[in-house]
Amino acid sequence: MRMAELSRTSGVPVATVKYYLREGLLHPGERTNRNQARYDDTHVRRLRLVRALLDVGKLSISTVREVLAAIDSADTSLHDILGVTQHGLPVAGTEVPDDEARDWARERVDSLLDERGWHCDHDSAVTESLVGVMATLHTLGHTGVASMVDRYADAAQRIAEDDVRHVAGLAAKEDVVETAVVGTVLGDALLASLRRIAQAEVSGRLLGSAGEPVSPPESA
Amino acid sequence: MRMAELSRTSGVPVATVKYYLREGLLHPGERTNRNQARYDDTHVRRLRLVRALLDVGKLSISTVREVLAAIDSADTSLHDILGVTQHGLPVAGTEVPDDEARDWARERVDSLLDERGWHCDHDSAVTESLVGVMATLHTLGHTGVASMVDRYADAAQRIAEDDVRHVAGLAAKEDVVETAVVGTVLGDALLASLRRIAQAEVSGRLLGSAGEPVSPPESA
Repeated sequence: MRMAELSRTSGVPVATVKYYLREGLLHPGERTNRNQARYDDTHVRRLRLVRALLDVGKLSISTVREVLAAIDSADTSLHDILGVTQHGLPVAGTEVPDDEARDWARERVDSLLDERGWHCDHDSAVTESLVGVMATLHTLGHTGVASMVDRYADAAQRIAEDDVRHVAGLAAKEDVVETAVVGTVLGDALLASLRRIAQAEVSGRLLGSAGEPVSPPESA
Repeated sequence: MRMAELSRTSGVPVATVKYYLREGLLHPGERTNRNQARYDDTHVRRLRLVRALLDVGKLSISTVREVLAAIDSADTSLHDILGVTQHGLPVAGTEVPDDEARDWARERVDSLLDERGWHCDHDSAVTESLVGVMATLHTLGHTGVASMVDRYADAAQRIAEDDVRHVAGLAAKEDVVETAVVGTVLGDALLASLRRIAQAEVSGRLLGSAGEPVSPPESA
């Protein structure tokens, strides 16, 4: 297909397609004469992935380039491709001016990771983000909420297991990466909404009328 | 204590304390002469709650006023107080121009709520938010991720059960409300970080080397 049809099929404006070509996010088409090239389904597929990485994942152009290079390299494992992708996803930063709170949170997170045998990089952006949230809870005097982190980790592990099995079942590497990004970003939003709905439900059941006292969750 | 000490103890600037007094977010102190009043621990406690509702929960001033009125009303159940509070928490809005996707998502969410016997308001902001995310997944062609919503709902229900039992175990209504807001908002951030760390862990285990094929999650 020509550029005009590629644009129509993919829903990406011609100027944007040309920009992706210049930036190396899209492989060149097959040149048919000095001013024209022919594109095929691989271009449509790649454009779809690039849009998902940029629009849903909010990855930078240079990270998208790295992810695509990992996909196109025959000897990069799926785990490593997903690693490059996840590394590029923005994480919520938390500024915690309180050193004591940060030290407390760091120790708590380190031991959580050790106890679970989670061998991730203790200094990665996402671990830093976890430390930041825990430190904020400490600063606010809500270590009670922080003490529930083990239960949250149980839930997160169960969800992650489903997440990874879901993407691993897809055939093409591009599908795996696209689904991982969409599933991670929008999955957070799904979980947040469902948690609130479920909280209202549980609250109605346990606290709706002045009944017997509610037993606290068993300590983890 | 005098205003200056109330400000020091609570960490809230004097001008802000006076603003809260004018807005009715803080009950007046006991007047000792024409220009001075005496404050006590109830003021310190209330200021702490107001800060959490405004800073962490991002509630509007008028919603904070409603939440405080619910707390101060003897015949409002804890469930209703939490309802007013949760109703005021901002939710992520999603604009979905595609009517077909929205109808599809609406039907999916309605049947999810019905199957679980979740009797929440099908038109509430948080349900709308869930519909928006599902519709976005449909528009992006990721109904595979949307099909995992049942598993996410299982996880959300388990977490919500712990959340509500945790706050219900607290003695003062103000503690319940403050902890509910902090736990809901920062709990989302905890979950999101933990999910990413767990994904990397599971991915390393299942996809790190070219091993046997990975079995997909059982269909829900």
